[in-house]
Amino acid sequence: MRLLDVDAEMVTVELADGPARFHALWLRDNAQDEASRHGNDQRLFDVTDLAEAVTVVTAEVVDGRLVVEFGPDGVTSSWDAVWLEMHCYDLPGRHRVTGQLANPWTADGLGGGTGPYRLAWVDRDDSAVWADITRALQRDGVAIVEGLDTGHTGATIGDVAALWGPIRETNYGRVFHVRAEVNPINLAFTPRALNVHTDNPYRRPVPGYQLLHCLVASDVGGMTVLVDGFRAAEALRDEDLAAFGLLSTRSVPFRWSGDGFDLRNRGPLIEVADGGPAHGIIQAVRYNNRSAAPFDLSFDEMAEYYEAFRTFARLLHRPELEYRFTLAPGECMVLDNERILHGRHGEADPERYLQGCYLDRDWIQGRIVN
Amino acid sequence: MRLLDVDAEMVTVELADGPARFHALWLRDNAQDEASRHGNDQRLFDVTDLAEAVTVVTAEVVDGRLVVEFGPDGVTSSWDAVWLEMHCYDLPGRHRVTGQLANPWTADGLGGGTGPYRLAWVDRDDSAVWADITRALQRDGVAIVEGLDTGHTGATIGDVAALWGPIRETNYGRVFHVRAEVNPINLAFTPRALNVHTDNPYRRPVPGYQLLHCLVASDVGGMTVLVDGFRAAEALRDEDLAAFGLLSTRSVPFRWSGDGFDLRNRGPLIEVADGGPAHGIIQAVRYNNRSAAPFDLSFDEMAEYYEAFRTFARLLHRPELEYRFTLAPGECMVLDNERILHGRHGEADPERYLQGCYLDRDWIQGRIVN
Repeated sequence: MRLLDVDAEMVTVELADGPARFHALWLRDNAQDEASRHGNDQRLFDVTDLAEAVTVVTAEVVDGRLVVEFGPDGVTSSWDAVWLEMHCYDLPGRHRVTGQLANPWTADGLGGGTGPYRLAWVDRDDSAVWADITRALQRDGVAIVEGLDTGHTGATIGDVAALWGPIRETNYGRVFHVRAEVNPINLAFTPRALNVHTDNPYRRPVPGYQLLHCLVASDVGGMTVLVDGFRAAEALRDEDLAAFGLLSTRSVPFRWSGDGFDLRNRGPLIEVADGGPAHGIIQAVRYNNRSAAPFDLSFDEMAEYYEAFRTFARLLHRPELEYRFTLAPGECMVLDNERILHGRHGEADPERYLQGCYLDRDWIQGRIVN
Repeated sequence: MRLLDVDAEMVTVELADGPARFHALWLRDNAQDEASRHGNDQRLFDVTDLAEAVTVVTAEVVDGRLVVEFGPDGVTSSWDAVWLEMHCYDLPGRHRVTGQLANPWTADGLGGGTGPYRLAWVDRDDSAVWADITRALQRDGVAIVEGLDTGHTGATIGDVAALWGPIRETNYGRVFHVRAEVNPINLAFTPRALNVHTDNPYRRPVPGYQLLHCLVASDVGGMTVLVDGFRAAEALRDEDLAAFGLLSTRSVPFRWSGDGFDLRNRGPLIEVADGGPAHGIIQAVRYNNRSAAPFDLSFDEMAEYYEAFRTFARLLHRPELEYRFTLAPGECMVLDNERILHGRHGEADPERYLQGCYLDRDWIQGRIVN
């Protein structure tokens, strides 16, 4: 690291990728001295505690660290080159740090062509195996835990969830039961075929991950279909940017009511980070034909929105995007519910019985994988 | 309701507020016949199951219901005037159905001037009282449950949460303990004054509601400060639309790490529904000086963004927005963590002890209040 230029308003240093400018106020706001940051890395002051005009008084590189003294408060802080490179915001074309580890797949490419990552339940205490399945979930959005019991003894779905964290309870209970019911409050609880969908877009917040544990499989029908919504959304962006733009910038309502609840949420079918439809990173996909409430866009946009919606819906049915397999008794599928759409193909055997539960995203995305 | 016009592509009817057009495809997608909707109101088909060109074959008003026969599938459905009025998307200036019941307040106006709604714990089984506090939470974003025990017997914070739903567990545990600690992993666990903030913007999803139960109050310092972030954001929009525009359209990173977790999230400080900065309904406010990660906007936007950020930060400190009070032992504050900022004024007595927990939004916003 080499100092290139200093004035009251900014510092320019040569980093590994080239020259980079840093504003005086940004540097002061990210000062690392003991009065500015706690040992746990939390900031000790509010931006309103800083002077209206923060300036650079002196700047130099000492022992590989940029050392800056600020005015008017006289605070001095220093940063090493690695920190500055990681947080640099002045390199054109540089990707932002997004925490986005997803690698969208088509059916052929899931898991590098071998299908979802599988963890055998007997290996659950092996931390390297745990790290592998956790990385697979972040990369592919889906993985399978196999070798579970199928009766009412042995590991429960809560034990599988506890590999990462506690169950997120909903009005359907801690665990929901996917089987044919006499008076189903949700179509999931019937033998009907279900189009690919994400669960509970009417909930706020939408469940981040879903677990589905197969106790009794279906002899006929009930095959599982998975589609990577990120991959499908990327295909829509490539083929029809106007449609992608509408679906990612217009919110639509979702609703489910019953059983003492009236759950409502709204959001775009495709959620992108800022950067807009053309460049924004895809962050979430919500799609559920059963619980979409009547669209409430303006009259002038409605016909065009429906065209975009139908284009995306058709795309979701492309064979090259559909990964099909039969979930066997003793297998538990874990999937990212804001990315991977799931459905069942064909009317299932009425005896088919899955147990399901939800898990908040942070338990999987926020646990440190060594 | 009176039929005004019919063609293959749309139907126009006279509703209470005037003439309203409905597209053929929108009507067909919202058909209420038995083959289209289940008894639980979920849609039984996917939009890809519909013909490319859905048309209106006939339309008439019979016994107060609009009855439409569609081509090419021959399906007939009907809707009453109330349903059509509720879902009408062709009335200029009509507010959308948003489920937004919030009534933003200044300090003087909270609870109509009397401060937060209070529920006495002895009245907890009275369903009318439950409905009142639930409405108050939706309207004001804050309410207090009082008359709880302060020792380790009697009702716990989990019992208070259970008025609405189960605790949302985080890496801090089911219940977190706000008191001075020797090696705090979070500044909340020190006697320091804390600027007003929302909790855990680094979490995905961000906790919807927060409960704080006071067991030991502070003799000096530690006064609670609340600010309605929706009200503050509205003030920013009124006074500086450009600043509001930046804060509501640019995402910034939040991060907390420690204890086996590395939690990251990003989002705008002010989240608005579509309609853009000038017109969009404010949906969420996130503000936490301690866990804001270094901003990563482009170099060209950084100085302007910091100006907007400072303007909003200063506005949050306006006395007319700050509701101040001392939470007494045996009181539990419940607040909307994506709307109401909270802080403590002055260094607290080291003996001060609060217990806290989180609750998902749906348990409060989605329970039916009669």
